[in-house]
Amino acid sequence: MGEMPVSKTAAKREARICEILSCAEKHFSNKGFHGAGISGIAADCGISVGHLYHYFGSKDELILAVVKSEMGRQDESITAFEDLSPENLRLEMAELTTAIFSTDAEPFRTVLNFEILAEAQRNPEVAALLQQQDTQMRRRFVTILRRAGIDDPETRTELIFTIFSGLSARALRHPEQERAALLEVIKDVILKILGDKQVASGALSA
Amino acid sequence: MGEMPVSKTAAKREARICEILSCAEKHFSNKGFHGAGISGIAADCGISVGHLYHYFGSKDELILAVVKSEMGRQDESITAFEDLSPENLRLEMAELTTAIFSTDAEPFRTVLNFEILAEAQRNPEVAALLQQQDTQMRRRFVTILRRAGIDDPETRTELIFTIFSGLSARALRHPEQERAALLEVIKDVILKILGDKQVASGALSA
Repeated sequence: MGEMPVSKTAAKREARICEILSCAEKHFSNKGFHGAGISGIAADCGISVGHLYHYFGSKDELILAVVKSEMGRQDESITAFEDLSPENLRLEMAELTTAIFSTDAEPFRTVLNFEILAEAQRNPEVAALLQQQDTQMRRRFVTILRRAGIDDPETRTELIFTIFSGLSARALRHPEQERAALLEVIKDVILKILGDKQVASGALSA
Repeated sequence: MGEMPVSKTAAKREARICEILSCAEKHFSNKGFHGAGISGIAADCGISVGHLYHYFGSKDELILAVVKSEMGRQDESITAFEDLSPENLRLEMAELTTAIFSTDAEPFRTVLNFEILAEAQRNPEVAALLQQQDTQMRRRFVTILRRAGIDDPETRTELIFTIFSGLSARALRHPEQERAALLEVIKDVILKILGDKQVASGALSA
């Protein structure tokens, strides 16, 4: 076989990196960043440890890559909110929020998220990544609220993000059967934060 | 030396257990539940591994004991809220909350808390402990609100707990210098959740 064109090699490299990250996420979720070992991750990925080190120079580098990838995914989740109509933002946002938290299709993402929060307190590089990505996510969310004419968007964004953060922890502390009721309450709160019913009806009657 | 009276032996045993738990918490915070090893914990505690196993039969047992002790501490923190005056609950509660989060004297407790939340998703016994303790804490908080004549105390408790949970995660995502502003916002939100200023001034003018 001749040499592959550069783009194909790059794509193959990209795919391999993706595969390693996915194995690493699973191991880090199951055993924590410090419990999981490079050899187990490589074995699960069907490659040698040496081969893995070819892509990631150290375990710390792999941890940072997993954090970066998860941060990217969280940032990406803002896109769904950007797609909402500014005219009907309050209701649509309240519904999208509860929809996101009620599907809970990826419980292992939540583990990873708590692992990352714990690691941020041990590892300044992880903390810096978290802060940098959060600044960016807040900026995007503020723009969404501002476009819908909602005032003091920075404060409201902070509150909604606090509730998002709290929700994943709260869900764990509730038996499964209570989660639906919790989400109903949260829907109301999101509406209130975005300018509650009184404000809306006041605007209508004006 | 003669045999110590039972109470003295019990006290000594209690003190030793306390010491082991404190070493274990430190190691679990630094390296995670799965990264920390029994031998390191025992060494740090100045005892042999065999001696440690005399008190805790397995690492899992030690993890559960650390979780139980942290849950007890969280439950204990409700006491400060029970000491507030029912007449002036809204303001006092908003101030106590921000005071608690602004001192942040024990950052390593936060790591431990995220470790516990991650572990709850791997270990059903930890999840059960979390749910059981949370039910109890909610019950105590509901009683405080009810005594102050605040209606729908269950929903308000859930909301305040969601914000408490969210706050520790949010603080990590903010550079240090932004935390004070975040806490000012939270103070307002707690006031709103407990029946906001409009309700209060309405009551005054009535």
